[in-house]
Amino acid sequence: MKIALAQLNYHIGNFDSNTDKIITTIRKARTKGADLVVFAELCVCGYPSRDFLEFTEYIELCEAAAQKIAAECTDIACIIGIPTENHMAEGKDHYNSAYFIADGKVQAVVNKALLPNYDVFDEYRYFEPSTQFNCIDFKGHRIALTICEDLWNTLENPLYVNRPMDELIKQQPDVMINIAASPFAYNHDEERIAILSDNARRYNLPLFYVNHVGAQTELIFDGGSLVFDNAGNIVDELPYFEEAITYYDLKDKAAIELLQPSTAKETRQSDIEQIHQGLLLGIRDYFYKSGFKSAILGLSGGIDSAVVCALAAEALGAENVMAVLLPSKFSTDHSLKDAEDLVKNLGCKHEIVPIKSITDSFEEALHPQFKGLPFNIAEENIQSRSRAVVLMAMCNKFGYILLNTSNKSEAAVGYGTLYGDMCGGISVLGDVFKTQVYQLANYINRDREIIPVNSIVKPPSAELRPDQKDSDSLPEYDILDTILKEYVENRQSSKAIIKMGYDEATVRRVIRLVNIAEHKRYQTPPILRVSPKAFGMGRRMPIVGKYLS
Amino acid sequence: MKIALAQLNYHIGNFDSNTDKIITTIRKARTKGADLVVFAELCVCGYPSRDFLEFTEYIELCEAAAQKIAAECTDIACIIGIPTENHMAEGKDHYNSAYFIADGKVQAVVNKALLPNYDVFDEYRYFEPSTQFNCIDFKGHRIALTICEDLWNTLENPLYVNRPMDELIKQQPDVMINIAASPFAYNHDEERIAILSDNARRYNLPLFYVNHVGAQTELIFDGGSLVFDNAGNIVDELPYFEEAITYYDLKDKAAIELLQPSTAKETRQSDIEQIHQGLLLGIRDYFYKSGFKSAILGLSGGIDSAVVCALAAEALGAENVMAVLLPSKFSTDHSLKDAEDLVKNLGCKHEIVPIKSITDSFEEALHPQFKGLPFNIAEENIQSRSRAVVLMAMCNKFGYILLNTSNKSEAAVGYGTLYGDMCGGISVLGDVFKTQVYQLANYINRDREIIPVNSIVKPPSAELRPDQKDSDSLPEYDILDTILKEYVENRQSSKAIIKMGYDEATVRRVIRLVNIAEHKRYQTPPILRVSPKAFGMGRRMPIVGKYLS
Repeated sequence: MKIALAQLNYHIGNFDSNTDKIITTIRKARTKGADLVVFAELCVCGYPSRDFLEFTEYIELCEAAAQKIAAECTDIACIIGIPTENHMAEGKDHYNSAYFIADGKVQAVVNKALLPNYDVFDEYRYFEPSTQFNCIDFKGHRIALTICEDLWNTLENPLYVNRPMDELIKQQPDVMINIAASPFAYNHDEERIAILSDNARRYNLPLFYVNHVGAQTELIFDGGSLVFDNAGNIVDELPYFEEAITYYDLKDKAAIELLQPSTAKETRQSDIEQIHQGLLLGIRDYFYKSGFKSAILGLSGGIDSAVVCALAAEALGAENVMAVLLPSKFSTDHSLKDAEDLVKNLGCKHEIVPIKSITDSFEEALHPQFKGLPFNIAEENIQSRSRAVVLMAMCNKFGYILLNTSNKSEAAVGYGTLYGDMCGGISVLGDVFKTQVYQLANYINRDREIIPVNSIVKPPSAELRPDQKDSDSLPEYDILDTILKEYVENRQSSKAIIKMGYDEATVRRVIRLVNIAEHKRYQTPPILRVSPKAFGMGRRMPIVGKYLS
Repeated sequence: MKIALAQLNYHIGNFDSNTDKIITTIRKARTKGADLVVFAELCVCGYPSRDFLEFTEYIELCEAAAQKIAAECTDIACIIGIPTENHMAEGKDHYNSAYFIADGKVQAVVNKALLPNYDVFDEYRYFEPSTQFNCIDFKGHRIALTICEDLWNTLENPLYVNRPMDELIKQQPDVMINIAASPFAYNHDEERIAILSDNARRYNLPLFYVNHVGAQTELIFDGGSLVFDNAGNIVDELPYFEEAITYYDLKDKAAIELLQPSTAKETRQSDIEQIHQGLLLGIRDYFYKSGFKSAILGLSGGIDSAVVCALAAEALGAENVMAVLLPSKFSTDHSLKDAEDLVKNLGCKHEIVPIKSITDSFEEALHPQFKGLPFNIAEENIQSRSRAVVLMAMCNKFGYILLNTSNKSEAAVGYGTLYGDMCGGISVLGDVFKTQVYQLANYINRDREIIPVNSIVKPPSAELRPDQKDSDSLPEYDILDTILKEYVENRQSSKAIIKMGYDEATVRRVIRLVNIAEHKRYQTPPILRVSPKAFGMGRRMPIVGKYLS
C-alpha cells in the first residue's frame, strides 16, 4: 500500500480554498501512484473552527466539501478530518470524525474518543466522544485509524481512563494512522515524538501521523508530521513550518520504504530558532488569511519594536512594512537614531510623526480639569495613546494592520498602556519573555547587524518621563521572567517559588501584578502562541477577582 | 428538619470575605433554630473561578476555608460547594463538590456528575465527572444532594445520557437539595422553574434549590432560589438580584412549612424589568468587587450613553458618576443640549472638553502623510479615539472606571471605533440590542422624564461627519436586530433567515458584517450578559476565518 502524507495549511471556514487544496493534492498523489492520501484532523473546515461548529450551515458546508472530495476519489483513497452529526438521541450534536473515502464514496467513519478540553482546547464544547472502535480494511492491510488526542495518552499521562488503541488492537491491525491538529510550542516537538514513538512500540505497529501546518490567528501549527516503524524508530519526519507531501510504501508492518521522503533537517532546532520560525509563519498567515499585505508599527528605538520590525520585514517583505517613529519630548536622540539605523538595515519604509503638538493639545484641552495637579501616569499614557491614534489613523487611511510590540513580561505585569502601546491587530511578542526577546534579537543578528547593537545593550525604558527605566518599577528581567515562568507557565504556588530562593516580597509583588492586570490583558490583541502557556484562549482568568492580590 | 437557604453574593478568590459571609450566615441561622444551612455551588471560592482552579494553592485555600466553616458547625449542619482533589490515578485533577458538614467536620462529599461545557461554561476543563451516587442521612431524612446541572436534564433535554437522580432515587430519599450557579438571562427564570418543577414531580420529592446572586464581571447571577413540593408546585421563590436567607420546616415529603418565607413579588417581571435590574447589579458589583467607586463616561446626547449614564447613576449614586461632553465640529447643538438636560435630570457631575483642537493637532501632525487625500474613516476615527484618550486620562488622573456605551447591535456589525467608543472597563449595553435600548430608556422614564425625550426620538447618529445617520450604513434597527437575533442568538442559517421573509442581500450583508467584526469584538471590554447568547466568553469565534464573509 502506497501512502501519501499531506501536511497542508488550511484556512478556517474557507471551504473553497481548503477543498481545492485537498483535491489538487489528491490529483498530484495519483500521478505518483499513491493508493491512499492522508490529510489532517478537521481539514475540510480548518482547526480550530470554534463556535462556527454550532452553526448547522457550517456543518452542511463541511459535508458538501466531503462529497466533492469523494467524487474525486474513484481510483484512489483518502482520509480527511470532518465534523459530523451525532444522530443519537442524546449527547452533543457532533463528532470530530475522520472519513475513509474510496471508490467515490465514504466507506467508513471514525469518531474521536478522547477530546482535549484544556489550555487552548475546547473539544467537549462541540463533540460527543466516540465509544465504538473499528479498524478499516484496505489493500490487504488493516488500519487502526485514530484522531490526535486518541493517541495522546501513554507515557503515564493520567488524563484519560479509556484508550481507543486498547480496543482497536484487539482487531489485529497492522498499521496505525493518526490525523492531528497539534499546535506549536517551543518544547512540543520532542514531547510529540516521544509520545507517538511510545505508541508505535507499545502496540508494535508502524504509525503514520499527519499534522496541520500554518497559523490560525493565535495558534501556530508547526507540521512535523511523522512516520514510525513498529519499534518506535522515526522512519521519516516532515518539515516544520511549511507544507509538504511525502510518499511511502508500506510493505508489511516492519518494512516501510521511503518513496519520496521529507527534506527535514537532521538536527533538532533550538527553542529560539523554533520561536523565530513560528513567529514568521504566524505573522505571514495572519496577514495572508485576513486579506492584508502591509504592516505598520511604532518604532521606539527599543529592542521590542526593533525585533517585531525585523520579523515583519522577513515575514512580509521589507517593502510591506511601514515603521513610524513617534518621538515625544521625552524621547532621547539615541532612540531616534537607533530606530533610523534599524530602518536602514532592513530597508523598510518609515515616517516620522512627532507627537509633542498632539500631547500638548490634550494637556491644554484638559487644563480646566487637571490644573494644579502634578504630571503623572495620566500624562504618560496620553503619549502612548496619542501614538496609537496616529498609527491607527494611518491604518485606516492606507490599509495597514498595526503590529503590537508588547512582550510577555510586560503583558504579564500590566506594564503597558491600554489603548496605547497595547493596541494592534496581532501581538507578535506577547508570548515571548523579555529575556527571550534579547535571544531573538541576537539570533536575528546572527549573520550581520540588523537590530542595532545599541537597541540591545541599552537599559530598557518606556521613555514616558525623563530618565525613566523599566527597572525603576520592575525587578530585573532575568528575575522577573523566572518568577513569571514559574507562576504563569508552571502554575507554581507563591510558597514554592519563594522556596526556590526568590525574595518573598518580590515574588508576592510579581504575582499580585499578574493577577491585577487581567482587565488589561482581556482587551489586548490575540497573541501568537509559542509557549506551552500563552496569555489568551489558553489561559482564562476571572477579571474581577481577589486572589493573591 | 429545619432548613435555611442562603442565597448570597460571593467574590471570586476572596476567601476571607466569602468565609466570613458563610460563617456569619451560619451563626444567624443558628439563632433561628435551623438544623441545616444550604449554600450555593462552589461558594467558598466564587463562580466561575476559571483557571484559578488550576493552581494548587487556590484549591488549598478552598480546603482551608472549608475547615474554618466546619469548625463553626458543631451544633448545626451545612452544605457548601467547593472544588476538591481527584485522588484517582486518572482523569482531571478536581471534582466540583459539595460538602455535607455536621458535628464540626465533613461527613459526606458529593461530586457533580453532569458538567456543563457550552456557552459560558467550561466545567470539563477543570473537573472529572462523578460516577458514584450516595444519599445523605440527617435528622431522620434521606437527602438526595446534587449540584446544578445534575438536575438540568429533564424536559426532553438531550444533552446527557446518564442522570444522577435516576441512581439516587433507588436509595429512596425523601428530599432533594440542589446547589447551583445558574447565571441570569432575561428568559432563564421560567426555564429554570419549569425544569426544576419537572424534577420534583418526576421523582415525587420536595426540592430545595439554592442559587448564587451577584455579578462576576460578565456573568450576573440572579438568585431566585426555589422550594418545590413533591407535586412540583412552587412553595417559595426567593428574591431576584439580592441576597436572602429563608427558613423552612420539612415535616415530611409532602409538607413544607414556611417559617420565614421569601419576600419575592408574586408576579413575574417583564424582560426589560429583569434586564434593568440585572444591569444595575452588574455595574454595582463590578465597581464594588474591583475596589472602585466612581464611573466616567462620554455623553454624546444620543440614547445609548444616556441610558448608561442613568443606569450608572442608579447603581452607583449620581454623585459617583462623571459625564463628559466631548463635542467635535460635527456635534450638533441639540446633542449638547440633550446631554446637558440628562445631566440635570440625574444630578450627576459633568465636564465639557471640546476636542476640536485635539483632532486638529492630529490632522496637522499627519498632514505630511495625508495631504491631498479626502476626509474619510481615518479622520472619523480620530475623533472617536481622541475622546477615548481624554476619558482615559481622566480615569488615570482621578481614579474613575470608564463605562463603555456600545450596544449589541453595534457590537455585532462592528459599527464602532476600536480604541475609541469601544473602550471601557465594562460594557453595560453590549448584550442589549438597540431596539431594547429604546425599551430600557422608556422604562427608565416610567415615572418622570430622566432621559430627554429628544434623545429617544431623534434618528441615531455617530456625528463623526456632517449629517451622518446610522441608517446611512446600516439597515433600520428593527430589521437589523431581528436578523442579528436569528443569526447570533438562535444560530440560524442565512437560508433560514431569508426564508423568514427578510431581503436576501440584507441578510447576507448583516451576517458578513458580524463575521468580519470578530477582530474588533476580541478587544472590547467584558460585556454584562443578559441574554442567552452574549458576545464574550459564551461565544468563541475564530478571528481570522472566512465563513459567509
